[in-house]
Amino acid sequence: MVDTFGDRLRERITDFGPLCVGIDPSHRQLTSWERGDDVSGLEFFSLAMLEASAGVAAAIKPQVAYFERFGSAGYRVLERLLADARDARVLVIADAKRGDIASTNDGYAQAWLRSDSPLASDALTMSPYLGLGTMTGLVDAAASSGRGIFVVVASSNDEGRVVQEALIDGDTRVEDALLEHIAQWNAGSDVVGSVGAVVGATRDRPRFDLARVKGPFLVPGVGEQGASPEHVARLFAGVTPGTVLVNVSRVVSSAGPDATSIRDAAQRWRDDLAAALP
Amino acid sequence: MVDTFGDRLRERITDFGPLCVGIDPSHRQLTSWERGDDVSGLEFFSLAMLEASAGVAAAIKPQVAYFERFGSAGYRVLERLLADARDARVLVIADAKRGDIASTNDGYAQAWLRSDSPLASDALTMSPYLGLGTMTGLVDAAASSGRGIFVVVASSNDEGRVVQEALIDGDTRVEDALLEHIAQWNAGSDVVGSVGAVVGATRDRPRFDLARVKGPFLVPGVGEQGASPEHVARLFAGVTPGTVLVNVSRVVSSAGPDATSIRDAAQRWRDDLAAALP
Repeated sequence: MVDTFGDRLRERITDFGPLCVGIDPSHRQLTSWERGDDVSGLEFFSLAMLEASAGVAAAIKPQVAYFERFGSAGYRVLERLLADARDARVLVIADAKRGDIASTNDGYAQAWLRSDSPLASDALTMSPYLGLGTMTGLVDAAASSGRGIFVVVASSNDEGRVVQEALIDGDTRVEDALLEHIAQWNAGSDVVGSVGAVVGATRDRPRFDLARVKGPFLVPGVGEQGASPEHVARLFAGVTPGTVLVNVSRVVSSAGPDATSIRDAAQRWRDDLAAALP
Repeated sequence: MVDTFGDRLRERITDFGPLCVGIDPSHRQLTSWERGDDVSGLEFFSLAMLEASAGVAAAIKPQVAYFERFGSAGYRVLERLLADARDARVLVIADAKRGDIASTNDGYAQAWLRSDSPLASDALTMSPYLGLGTMTGLVDAAASSGRGIFVVVASSNDEGRVVQEALIDGDTRVEDALLEHIAQWNAGSDVVGSVGAVVGATRDRPRFDLARVKGPFLVPGVGEQGASPEHVARLFAGVTPGTVLVNVSRVVSSAGPDATSIRDAAQRWRDDLAAALP
């Protein structure tokens, strides 16, 4: 039987700590590294961030939007990054926030979660506005190859609360209903399942007991968005050790372009997070 | 002053009718045309569908997921399709359902709504789980170049209702709150603004008065998903003429691969829709 993505991630977190390095090659970021805002700057930045992450971070999280800025040429760089990450034994979470009707989601599964795809990633982030029921085929595809998805449940930004805290049947928040659905998907797993949740470190604890989700958590909001490792520890108190993956982006990349400085910054965040989390 | 996307679309609908041809090069679709499920099949299908749409449809709507299945090579085909559509004077709505925090959405604006991008499209579909407040930069970028966005408000599939009909402040559905926000964005436009709404033809009329939205409507759900032109007419009774764009995909493409047959099918749907709609 194939290990679940949750189990594979837990193993990496045990070995390397709970840090995920976000790779966000925005115009602002490439410019601050004094690189051109072009495909060559994109490639330099992405590979330097991967190199600094190997052995320090459990995973990297490329933000696909910033590659898509350059169309197919940007996607070629992303493919190179994904291939190099596989070689470097760093897990990749493609942050693409896809989500559509079921037949279209099967297309996304083929793009991101199939071993022979040039974009094959260990996990893909998903946006649930069209409902989790659309994602069954994607979850099955992920599980069969040890890959996973992370559903955005409670995003780190304020503007999402109006949707995420709206009420279903009078008293259940959307975010809690999603967590319950994810828990059902993961219920059959021995330890940690294939379906994770994105829960921002800047948010209050959901009403649904996070320990019951049995999936990995991807946690944005730490660093520039203001949350600390202690926030994360409080939010996830009680969940299975090794299931909380904390994304840190700009506070690491802003130490660049010098490779040693990026790596030192990543290491500091890793150590602070590892000390705070169970 | 630049014409708004809504005005540009209204002009096309007046000239060509309310049909949008969905270009969905799925595994199933390429196979049914007896083409390989590969980049060459993808290109053949996409360009044939564009050719059949020119002069018959106001717009085409490529489903980006199906291009992404082939990674950067699939995106190269999409770029070719977009360039050919510009030459053929067919508007393009990139159906990508993007949506993230504000800084990332700026990346999507650069990818899809900037004239010098290889993926430049007339409009982009957006998924609102992270809140409409994240899309301000994207809306500004769209408006400044006569482009637009379509926010998924009420999707054609059943699984999305649990989120879309959840209640804010006790009595406002999420979908109605989004329509109100969109109406505010469009309020300053003379006739039709840059921000559209996706409202499935299979859904009941939202409580918010659609005539007040002042944006274009993109309507899936007709054809294979079961809704008829008369459903659409009832749903959008009272809105400004020329603002309802109805997407039809498989019932047109299944007439292929013969070019004349696809065009005939598109023309029949166009005529039926034009007869039913105001």
